[in-house]
Parts: sequence; structure tokens; C-alpha cells
Amino acid sequence: MSKGILIVVSGFSGAGKGTITKELVKRYENYCLSVSATSRKPREGEVEGRDYFYKTREEFESMIENDELLEHAQYVGNYYGTPKKYVEDCINAGRDVILEIEVQGALQIKKKVPEAVTIFMTTPTIAILKQRLIGRGTETLEVIEQRLKRAKEEAEYMTQYDYIIVNDDLEECVTGLNDLLASLHSRVSNNEEFISSIKKQLQEI
Amino acid sequence: MSKGILIVVSGFSGAGKGTITKELVKRYENYCLSVSATSRKPREGEVEGRDYFYKTREEFESMIENDELLEHAQYVGNYYGTPKKYVEDCINAGRDVILEIEVQGALQIKKKVPEAVTIFMTTPTIAILKQRLIGRGTETLEVIEQRLKRAKEEAEYMTQYDYIIVNDDLEECVTGLNDLLASLHSRVSNNEEFISSIKKQLQEI
Repeated sequence: MSKGILIVVSGFSGAGKGTITKELVKRYENYCLSVSATSRKPREGEVEGRDYFYKTREEFESMIENDELLEHAQYVGNYYGTPKKYVEDCINAGRDVILEIEVQGALQIKKKVPEAVTIFMTTPTIAILKQRLIGRGTETLEVIEQRLKRAKEEAEYMTQYDYIIVNDDLEECVTGLNDLLASLHSRVSNNEEFISSIKKQLQEI
Repeated sequence: MSKGILIVVSGFSGAGKGTITKELVKRYENYCLSVSATSRKPREGEVEGRDYFYKTREEFESMIENDELLEHAQYVGNYYGTPKKYVEDCINAGRDVILEIEVQGALQIKKKVPEAVTIFMTTPTIAILKQRLIGRGTETLEVIEQRLKRAKEEAEYMTQYDYIIVNDDLEECVTGLNDLLASLHSRVSNNEEFISSIKKQLQEI
């Protein structure tokens, strides 16, 4: 059995990362969705192990010291990070792991794990992004402005990703992303054992 | 409209490269199949422009001098090469060009055109490869031995390709290869104009 692939998904707030990755994991059995650890307090409705693994600052810092995180960063005084063990267990079990993660963390991972695949998700246009953010109806205009400002910063990193996925239609996006991820298993780097076996068979005839 | 992709397909004799690539071009409109130029004489049943573009040695050498070939090599005293113009025309028209080409030429192209995608096609096992070669019924045992010896040499270059395609079942192989090639259009290198446009839109809001 070949190893799974580490897939990092970033993208603009409002591009639909969460919806698409959750749908992918629901439909296809070969994906794991990584859950981040954080030192921030759970918000109402959030569930331990589904939304985040909640840690105290001390617990989080000891995870950093023990090299238990694939990447980590601080936002507004709180730690966020990706626990290494779950990712490694899934990959060794031959399943692809999806990490939904912001730009800095994504590029950290690409440096540490060059065979990881980084995907940036966007809407077809910024007008559509704005519409979607307004359409949610849960955010104030101020928050929407902040997200668009953030998008402007994030866009500077788009060319450092491997793939750009345009989320125009949910159905097409999920199917297209699944096809893309499936095709990655044909990469030479994912077939080293198979190639060795073919070479061995050719020596034996 | 985004540019097409240069796709180089190599693989063991008997792996089914010709069948698969012809089927791909027949089924989907977005592919062009590149036709090689050669200085060897047409064999019975071969058609100019379908099997090869037939040239005299002098004509071929002037193509080399005028830099009209993407790659070229000599086998058993004859020239073989890929005319550049057809490939460039297809790519500029947004179509993916498939080059079915042997190992040396494939690696020459990868060096010259780094964004080209190289694919190596194999049977699931060497026993199956041997069966297919015997099953053709057109080759002597001596020729089959030569092809397997050649396969042994070619296998040494497999890890220098981008993707390995296992041709187990025609239907699955054609569909899988089409999915793989479609997914390449999501590469960042194929979306530079789109990324620039998104950045521009973000500057304007």
C-alpha cells in the first residue's frame, strides 16, 4: 500500500474552504481532515476534537518543546498549530490528510515537507467573494472590510502554492478537487516502491 | 484563455502508449497529438502526416539548423524529431499537446521546457508486458527479447519522469489520464494571468 499525501488548503475567507473540504471528507473514504490545536477558549457551539483540540498555553508550549507540531503560529495572543501524530498516522495508513490552514502555516509546511501539496482556493472574482461574505449575513461591514484587506495580503502568496482551485460551483469544485488529489497518487514520488519492483522484475526475466 | 500544456508520454514497448494516446485524442477535443518528423522511408501502410512527416536527410538537417525541432535524435542511421511549430500552435490555441516519444527525447524536452509534464506508462507487471508482446503475434521471440532488454534500460529513467501511469485496463487508463491532465490546468504556472487579475481586483475594491 502506498502512503497518503499531505494536502494543505488555504484561501480567502469566504472562498468556501471549509464547505469544500468537509464535503470531500464526507463523500470519499480516503481522506482525513486534520484538526488544529489551539490555546484559545472554545466558542459557543464548538466541539473538542471536531473544531479544535483545546489546550492551555502551558500544554501548547510543551507540545512545541516536544516537537509535537507540524507548524504553529500565534494570532491575537493565542496559539494555533497542527498536531503531528494524527497527520503521520493517517499518511502511514495510506490516507490523504487535508489541512485547512492559513498562508503562513501552509508555507511553513511546504518547507518542512516538500512532497506536501499546497492548494489555494478562491472565488472566480473578488465581486463574488464580497457577495458571499455579505450573503452570510453574520458579519458586520467592518469585519467584511477586514477580511478583504486580509485577502489582499494573502493574494501576494498565491504564486507560492502548487495549485489554484476556483470555487465557482460546489459540485464541480468537490469533484474537480477529488480528481486532482487522486491524480497526485501517480506522481513518481508516490510510486518509488512500485518502480523498484518493476526494475527487479526486469532483472529477473 | 489559458495556454495548453506540453505532455510527453514515454513507456515500455507493449505498455499501450499508442492505443491510450490515440483514444484520448479521439474522445476529447482539447488534445492535439504531435506527429514526428523522420528521415527514414515510409513503411507499407504508413501515411504522411499521420504516422510521420517524411523528410530527406538534407531537409531534416536544415530543420535542425533552423531550430525548427523541439528535440531530435538518430536511430539506426535515421533522424527522428519533433517539429516545434505544430506544438507551439496548439499550445497557443489553448490545447494540450501529447508527444509520444522515447526516453532520451523526453528528458531533452523536460530540460528545454521545464513546465512540460512527463509521463511514463507501464503495465502492472513485467509478466503482463511479456504476455502483451507475445499476444500481438507479430513479433519474433528475438524481437520480444530485444524489447524487454530495452525496457530494462528505460526503467532506469522512470524516476526522472513526473508521473507513472499503470495501464491495467484501457477504460480506466484513458479516464485516469484525462483526469490527471485536466488537473494540471490548476497548477499555479497555468494560472498566472488569473492570479494577476485577482490581485488587480483586490487593489480596486
